[in-house]
Amino acid sequence: MSGIRVGIAGVTGYGGQELLRLAARHPQVEVTAAMASSARDGERALPSLTGVWSGDITPLSVADLTRSVDAVFLALPEAASAELVPELVARGARVFDLSGAFRLRSAAARARWYPKTPELETPILYGLTERCRAALPDARVVSCPGCYPTSALLALQPLAEAGVIEGDVVIDAKSGISGAGKTPSEKTHFSERHGSVAAYGVLAHRHAAEMEQQLERAVTFVPHLVPLDRGILATIYVRVRPGTTEAAVAGLFEQAYGDAPLVRLRHAALPDIRQVAYTNFCDIGWKLDADSGRMVLVSCLDNLGKGAAGQALQNLNVAFGLEEQAGLL
Amino acid sequence: MSGIRVGIAGVTGYGGQELLRLAARHPQVEVTAAMASSARDGERALPSLTGVWSGDITPLSVADLTRSVDAVFLALPEAASAELVPELVARGARVFDLSGAFRLRSAAARARWYPKTPELETPILYGLTERCRAALPDARVVSCPGCYPTSALLALQPLAEAGVIEGDVVIDAKSGISGAGKTPSEKTHFSERHGSVAAYGVLAHRHAAEMEQQLERAVTFVPHLVPLDRGILATIYVRVRPGTTEAAVAGLFEQAYGDAPLVRLRHAALPDIRQVAYTNFCDIGWKLDADSGRMVLVSCLDNLGKGAAGQALQNLNVAFGLEEQAGLL
Amino acid sequence: MSGIRVGIAGVTGYGGQELLRLAARHPQVEVTAAMASSARDGERALPSLTGVWSGDITPLSVADLTRSVDAVFLALPEAASAELVPELVARGARVFDLSGAFRLRSAAARARWYPKTPELETPILYGLTERCRAALPDARVVSCPGCYPTSALLALQPLAEAGVIEGDVVIDAKSGISGAGKTPSEKTHFSERHGSVAAYGVLAHRHAAEMEQQLERAVTFVPHLVPLDRGILATIYVRVRPGTTEAAVAGLFEQAYGDAPLVRLRHAALPDIRQVAYTNFCDIGWKLDADSGRMVLVSCLDNLGKGAAGQALQNLNVAFGLEEQAGLL
Amino acid sequence: MSGIRVGIAGVTGYGGQELLRLAARHPQVEVTAAMASSARDGERALPSLTGVWSGDITPLSVADLTRSVDAVFLALPEAASAELVPELVARGARVFDLSGAFRLRSAAARARWYPKTPELETPILYGLTERCRAALPDARVVSCPGCYPTSALLALQPLAEAGVIEGDVVIDAKSGISGAGKTPSEKTHFSERHGSVAAYGVLAHRHAAEMEQQLERAVTFVPHLVPLDRGILATIYVRVRPGTTEAAVAGLFEQAYGDAPLVRLRHAALPDIRQVAYTNFCDIGWKLDADSGRMVLVSCLDNLGKGAAGQALQNLNVAFGLEEQAGLL
Repeated sequence: MSGIRVGIAGVTGYGGQELLRLAARHPQVEVTAAMASSARDGERALPSLTGVWSGDITPLSVADLTRSVDAVFLALPEAASAELVPELVARGARVFDLSGAFRLRSAAARARWYPKTPELETPILYGLTERCRAALPDARVVSCPGCYPTSALLALQPLAEAGVIEGDVVIDAKSGISGAGKTPSEKTHFSERHGSVAAYGVLAHRHAAEMEQQLERAVTFVPHLVPLDRGILATIYVRVRPGTTEAAVAGLFEQAYGDAPLVRLRHAALPDIRQVAYTNFCDIGWKLDADSGRMVLVSCLDNLGKGAAGQALQNLNVAFGLEEQAGLL
Repeated sequence: MSGIRVGIAGVTGYGGQELLRLAARHPQVEVTAAMASSARDGERALPSLTGVWSGDITPLSVADLTRSVDAVFLALPEAASAELVPELVARGARVFDLSGAFRLRSAAARARWYPKTPELETPILYGLTERCRAALPDARVVSCPGCYPTSALLALQPLAEAGVIEGDVVIDAKSGISGAGKTPSEKTHFSERHGSVAAYGVLAHRHAAEMEQQLERAVTFVPHLVPLDRGILATIYVRVRPGTTEAAVAGLFEQAYGDAPLVRLRHAALPDIRQVAYTNFCDIGWKLDADSGRMVLVSCLDNLGKGAAGQALQNLNVAFGLEEQAGLL
Repeated sequence: MSGIRVGIAGVTGYGGQELLRLAARHPQVEVTAAMASSARDGERALPSLTGVWSGDITPLSVADLTRSVDAVFLALPEAASAELVPELVARGARVFDLSGAFRLRSAAARARWYPKTPELETPILYGLTERCRAALPDARVVSCPGCYPTSALLALQPLAEAGVIEGDVVIDAKSGISGAGKTPSEKTHFSERHGSVAAYGVLAHRHAAEMEQQLERAVTFVPHLVPLDRGILATIYVRVRPGTTEAAVAGLFEQAYGDAPLVRLRHAALPDIRQVAYTNFCDIGWKLDADSGRMVLVSCLDNLGKGAAGQALQNLNVAFGLEEQAGLL
Repeated sequence: MSGIRVGIAGVTGYGGQELLRLAARHPQVEVTAAMASSARDGERALPSLTGVWSGDITPLSVADLTRSVDAVFLALPEAASAELVPELVARGARVFDLSGAFRLRSAAARARWYPKTPELETPILYGLTERCRAALPDARVVSCPGCYPTSALLALQPLAEAGVIEGDVVIDAKSGISGAGKTPSEKTHFSERHGSVAAYGVLAHRHAAEMEQQLERAVTFVPHLVPLDRGILATIYVRVRPGTTEAAVAGLFEQAYGDAPLVRLRHAALPDIRQVAYTNFCDIGWKLDADSGRMVLVSCLDNLGKGAAGQALQNLNVAFGLEEQAGLL
């Protein structure tokens, strides 16, 4: 078998495991290395992947990770990415980083939310695929957006760039609990989450900084944990410029995503998580009250798919000239 | 046993069944009649209530319902309440109606959302207990608020009345699925809801009219179905008047609910559904960014408890001079 | 207020918290002390109990726990109970222990499953309420059965004692995850349990020993974790002696539980968890294929209610001459 | 694109939709027709499949279904399959039927459980892939097993055929609720199922007949609904012939499935639903108490994957000489 050769670090977390699963069955990708999150991790098995991925899970090793590969994926905690990316760049690797370490451009914002992240000389591409396709083939470091920003930005950017939005932007997001990762804690304890909904990180979430950077405007963002495993639904509240019509809004979305294979426009048939879970689609719907100018958008995706592993692979597809949705349907 | 004698119509629905369960074990209430939702319903058993309520469930009969009672509870579809309430009033009954039929005062709003509701000469009390205690002892017809308005209004009214809120009010509510009632449908089909979140009634929900009436201002309200059975969490986004301090906000809430036994102020420790499910509490928390004036409130309650049956019983307690929380802890 | 004065140790766990909640609202019980699980625990708040229990949660102290009380409840890890019970007995306290420490009578079984448990001179009553009512008033130490044995034994004992059962007994139990306690672990991590069912402790579970002791016969017991919070459903497979009729089986159950307020016989209408969650009922149903002698029983209860806190309180009620179901409906 | 051309009837149900999703992305399959469950159904859209399947969903038509196809899949209610299969056979189509209509060979059993099924002259292959590979290339009608029998038979047949099992066989199965289909009912109402577990069809389930036919021995089978969407876990209780060792058991399983790409042997690491949901794997684990001869097996699979659509496609793969797991990883 030949194909794009990729090494993956961090396959033992939820995002990394999903990435390995997707990459292993991708017809044009060959996984050359699947590594744990640190050099101290022993070799491991991933029972879910028996029969899908027959290779070993080895301890993290930069030398092995970059040996004979076309690209490296990092599905690591942000501190580990912050340390590793410069080393990988120095070795000439093309890097797709799933962590938040390199998402923020402002030094001040980075100091607050990702204090371990160094300055890099190499330019970093913010890898929201549908917004950066042209830049992907030449990018050396692609910082893949988080699941919350991906859902919010895909819905908001076409409107924001057209200057249609006025006033406050409220983003109320509901996330499945796999987004909180694999480490047990009270927050992820079954009995605490079953039958419950909870807001967290209110008015102080680093993903808000990421959204504000890309939108170039302030947002109020409140994430919630809802009792399901995979998926995010963002309900977005804005006001549009007086005179904005439903047709104008639809036109902006068609222009932005008319030929995007992995964004599905639902118009007034608002999407729900069920339609996107276990896929790499982002579904977007909206309702506009033209009289008052109030508009509600609903955007949803799978937090481990389009919100993490799937988008990273989608970026690889575009970067290497494959079909954008290859291995992702 | 002696006590307040009550007749209940509609005990076969989720709200009615909860009401019967609460009333049956209330130490100062005696249930004289527990009826189905219509005269055509045969007698039925409620397996969950075996051992709690030993009486019969009989077909609906106004004559029997009002025989030797101090109060009548209606847990019926709104059309049935619309028809029954005038008849009950004519017979001199004190009525606690859990449906939406008589919640809206404006004839225009009522014509839109509750077209079967007639005009009544008897005044109707909007029964949000914490806001209407003084009026309850003399009320003949108490229209108990719905679960969404109860959660939103308890959080918003102290601020709105103090003139602290400015600009748009966004209410993003997440509801358990028992709120959609007992009739099977695609919307309440397990496989459609499990692992999903969906917005519905966007920019067109009659509960928004109820909130706007009580707040005397427009709101943007979007309800969502989340995959749990009981509970509502409303996340509320407002801007406060410049200069409003955290202490001022806390003061308004303490003033409003300092002695309310069934409202719990959580301040910055935002509440979640788990703490209120299967109770009659409404928990309220909030975060204020004093610099920007942006404020997020979280209010939650059990939709069948404080959002329906529990509040109706709480109203009875106050109306008849019992301890407000009697039978509700 | 006067009443039976009780001290409770271990109110921060799920079982202890449920016990405090039930005891606090029990009309004839007064909670004199609510303590954490160890002397090193600082004082704590239990947000769910705000408005229900207004006292403090204090560090564990035997002296304070036994001060001016009629009874002491222990909702502690078994090692803590093993250490504490002898001390409490020495101080003359009446003890209701919710842990497994003193449930097994055989020294060999105890050495295997509860190695820290000492021999006690005081007799220990196995507190399955419906089977030990007469002995409760004089018992000094009541070891309350676990949730799995309670569900299985209430269904099996009437048949086993009548000699109706032949051959193998298979008990397949499905438990909500609150039964695994409050400490986060991979086993109780939301994303591992949501959408999953898993067997555990197969052919090696200490609750099997408890069942075998009470039934005086071998059983095959396999517990499973199912994705819900509260409740156990045990499906029990037996063969009955040839000639055993449905009427005979029903007669045995009526004889055993005809006047038991907290056991509900469902006959062929098999019970499910929904009917017992958040209650202190044990519901039992069964189907018999008289030709083949194969019989399936279904028994279910709330693991924190009848399976833990509720049954402990039910034992207190009987021990002190209160109505058996007082505070438990 | 060229490939095996297939027509699918019944794509609007859960099983049919999964089949269409799998077939549409199968690299060697071309879907020529995707039809609703009856001729009266108008054309429809399947929002979940937007971007995956771009064809139309048309009303059921035998003529169109068999036009230029290599195989026909029926994901229909059994009465519809009973009527359609003879007609399809007459037209010379190769049929893969997912319903139960033709699974039972005994006329008496069929009369009881599938009264509408006619006698067919064409032989019918019971399509449990791992047990019928050699016969698939020549089969004209493949009756694909149900989800419960697939999980139970894959675990039991290697032991039963080796004569290792003695005495009663108890199969306690826990199923996700998508197995109950897409039609809303009280049984599938979210609030009835959330937080609950219920046994059904006790001692009277047609899938028991299917298992007994294939095993050639009686079984006690009790299915349960558990609150999850996709997956089945069967816990199986048997006794083995004295002297049977763990090694002997493992040997039988290795012999049966050592080269099966879609059965994963877990040995003593018992599988759970999470590892098989959304896959086409059947995972099997077991524990043997060699002293007593008691043995517990756990077998699990995705009820819509290996238990329905996936296995049908796996049968197609083998029948047409493709790689067995093609399109199924």
